[in-house]
Amino acid sequence: MSRHEGTQAGLDYIFHPRSTAVVGIIPDAQKRFKLGNQFIRVLQDFGYKGPLYAVGSGEGEVSGLKVFQNIGDIPGVVDYVITAIPNREVPQLVEECGKKGVRVMNLFVSGFGEIEGDVGLELQQEILHTARTYGIRIIGPNCMGIYCPESRLAFGLDFSRTAGKIGYLSQSGGQCILGIKEANRRGIYFSKVVSYGNAADINECDLLEYFTQDAETDIITADIEGTNQGPRLLRVLGKAAAEKPVIVFKCAATEGGSQAAVSHTSSIAGSGLIWETLLRQAGAIRVYSVKEMFDVVTVLQRCPEIKGLNTLVLGHGGGSCVQASDDCCRVGLKMPILPVELRQALMKVYKTNAGNIFKNPLDINPYLGIDKAREAFNAVAGWNGVDLILLHTTPEQDPFAPRDFQYQIHTDTLIEWAKLSPKPVVLVMNTNTAPRDDRLPEKSFNRVLEAGFAVFPSVKRAATAVFRVYKYYQWKSNLSKRR
Amino acid sequence: MSRHEGTQAGLDYIFHPRSTAVVGIIPDAQKRFKLGNQFIRVLQDFGYKGPLYAVGSGEGEVSGLKVFQNIGDIPGVVDYVITAIPNREVPQLVEECGKKGVRVMNLFVSGFGEIEGDVGLELQQEILHTARTYGIRIIGPNCMGIYCPESRLAFGLDFSRTAGKIGYLSQSGGQCILGIKEANRRGIYFSKVVSYGNAADINECDLLEYFTQDAETDIITADIEGTNQGPRLLRVLGKAAAEKPVIVFKCAATEGGSQAAVSHTSSIAGSGLIWETLLRQAGAIRVYSVKEMFDVVTVLQRCPEIKGLNTLVLGHGGGSCVQASDDCCRVGLKMPILPVELRQALMKVYKTNAGNIFKNPLDINPYLGIDKAREAFNAVAGWNGVDLILLHTTPEQDPFAPRDFQYQIHTDTLIEWAKLSPKPVVLVMNTNTAPRDDRLPEKSFNRVLEAGFAVFPSVKRAATAVFRVYKYYQWKSNLSKRR
Repeated sequence: MSRHEGTQAGLDYIFHPRSTAVVGIIPDAQKRFKLGNQFIRVLQDFGYKGPLYAVGSGEGEVSGLKVFQNIGDIPGVVDYVITAIPNREVPQLVEECGKKGVRVMNLFVSGFGEIEGDVGLELQQEILHTARTYGIRIIGPNCMGIYCPESRLAFGLDFSRTAGKIGYLSQSGGQCILGIKEANRRGIYFSKVVSYGNAADINECDLLEYFTQDAETDIITADIEGTNQGPRLLRVLGKAAAEKPVIVFKCAATEGGSQAAVSHTSSIAGSGLIWETLLRQAGAIRVYSVKEMFDVVTVLQRCPEIKGLNTLVLGHGGGSCVQASDDCCRVGLKMPILPVELRQALMKVYKTNAGNIFKNPLDINPYLGIDKAREAFNAVAGWNGVDLILLHTTPEQDPFAPRDFQYQIHTDTLIEWAKLSPKPVVLVMNTNTAPRDDRLPEKSFNRVLEAGFAVFPSVKRAATAVFRVYKYYQWKSNLSKRR
Repeated sequence: MSRHEGTQAGLDYIFHPRSTAVVGIIPDAQKRFKLGNQFIRVLQDFGYKGPLYAVGSGEGEVSGLKVFQNIGDIPGVVDYVITAIPNREVPQLVEECGKKGVRVMNLFVSGFGEIEGDVGLELQQEILHTARTYGIRIIGPNCMGIYCPESRLAFGLDFSRTAGKIGYLSQSGGQCILGIKEANRRGIYFSKVVSYGNAADINECDLLEYFTQDAETDIITADIEGTNQGPRLLRVLGKAAAEKPVIVFKCAATEGGSQAAVSHTSSIAGSGLIWETLLRQAGAIRVYSVKEMFDVVTVLQRCPEIKGLNTLVLGHGGGSCVQASDDCCRVGLKMPILPVELRQALMKVYKTNAGNIFKNPLDINPYLGIDKAREAFNAVAGWNGVDLILLHTTPEQDPFAPRDFQYQIHTDTLIEWAKLSPKPVVLVMNTNTAPRDDRLPEKSFNRVLEAGFAVFPSVKRAATAVFRVYKYYQWKSNLSKRR
């Protein structure tokens, strides 16, 4: 079986090249922003493990590496080639790579199927033909390629070296970079990430199949603009979702978005309704932005299974509690009324409900002391009328207390409650108010994150993620029943 | 005509008290977090203009002011009284204030109509009866009171001393504090703000009537949990909206939210559908959070009249452009296709569309130089097929460029385009990615703000605000036609 006809499980080698060459180097320190040179710098910075080669025009060195004039001049084996050369030069390079025995090419360069006129598409087809002749797999063109912490492959600065259990395929390169940064700062780490652009060869279906069987991947995230393989995608997604959660950010879902997608990655975005049906049938969790994608991952990774939508909403501040309740209910969470005996238990703790709300939502004043807050929480947390507890806080709404004191007491109380909870908890820090040099909002957010809990910047985002995850568990459970 | 029966235009005096007394003072430096003492501190800090008196229990001073034992002991006239005493002591105080000739009382204290049982409501009615006998107007109870930059009245630290043209009435005190901070940091300033809590006397209708005729107020913002005067509210809102834009954040719009509201400010929230109809009929601009309220204010204050929904969407990054287009279209903006001659004009500037998108959306690479970016913008900005231009940028998606360079070039380009635009522009800085000590996102956001443009943290929020403002202009225009 030749490489390009292999099962997608066989794709594993693309993440573990024995050596890598970057083509499109200019050996001149003045041109450090030359894209090829940047790839070398990123790979060195990230600690790429295999030998790294530079190929370019002109004698000399770049970042301490000798610049080879041709891929054929490299003495050792070359598994992986990253190209940063003009589109018209690519067909010749693929030919040379074929002769050299290259296994995978990341065509970073754009100017193929996504541009107007026939030239780009013809170039893309020529490349594909040559690549297939030699058994080379192509990532792209018009993409960023592979980020794999274990192999120390990366395509951007500041990516985490920590490996995690999230697989991520993204048609957009820029969104992928933002997604990786967004995830990392929320304590989410990746097994493998592929920015796959125009999908001339390796496409969303191949990658979904690969991640489905990949033991290092527990959750699959996908940013897809379009597909040429609708029926296969439905099958592949269905199989994937039966094995592990698959979160799909199907963008280009409107007329304007579709206009953009065809010029961005040559994608035929397809009708919104067809996608809606396809994703629902397949059991994929659909989201509408990269941030929402990692909101869902946060719930999946940091909460036990959510078995229902009945929610106890607990926070401080009457207006905040009203808003939190509206946001939860609008998204589809349920807020059953707190039983009379639990309301009485809370009255015993606080003597009065002036300044508090003892219903559902609960408005508990954390300034009355952590002991009372703990006692109040324990009085209600065991209530079997709810499936999860949503804890929210909005520092900076107190008129008089110093900022640092507000952040401290709110964060302490939230973490204390979360630790005591016998039920799944999601936490919200409404901290997006007034940026200051003290960076108190971010620090409080990070404290909750480091305590291991699922934390969100708004109730709406938390509730939306919870709702979607619950629906996935429900789909999964129905699936097992049908089998 | 006695004061409490006056027209609402007559309410003006409540914002300009000749003197203010705070009741509930403890003359002890150790108890600086005592709420009454805090009010004194805030008013002094804010530079309250009239004489300020402290009334409390125990001999001594607070913040340099002698503490009087009774309101009657104060030698001069007392117009305005802020109370921070237990609910049961309030009826007696109102009696004393009546004898002293006090004109307005801000009942900061809670424990009235909003608590369970009859005690709170009875107290509230007793107070109201006494107040009416003496012609005292009541703000609250269970509220923060008045913020008026011109009179140097405030109820929280860090409020701006700059006076603006926005009137703001808010049933929630905490949300009001957040709202003021949110607005201030977005360059929005207030004529007068009233946090009015339980609305026992002065209610949302009174305040809307007042702001309608107030020459210092151009735009009215209102955070309302419920009303007891539905038909009057419809009339008052309709009259207000015919005069100036009225933005209503009607919270407590769901079952959960309503449960919260009755315990928060004793509000009967009412059915969501009734409110929807009432607000639409009245021509109010409805929003669903405090942030959205000031998003709308931003468009109203910083854009010329928006005469249609046809939008040119311009930014950088294929994935970002796809997302921006989806967000615009989902909200209701229209994105007509760029005419062929304009696409050709852009091809003339850039020679190729590889890495760019020349449709609508436009993906223009700012790294190719400000001159080219300017030329490209001028080639399309005059297109009469669109009513407004939405400019968006997402720094940090470039894999290699240094952060500061990315923020600088993106912000420079955005501001340059906005300055050149012959049409209304809204700008979006998708900066909410990775908080760092350099605070580049906030600084870039502020640069756009200071250049005078309408700027938002996401396309969705910008597009939503634009859509709502357009609908208001449309309602207003239909109103004039009917007259």
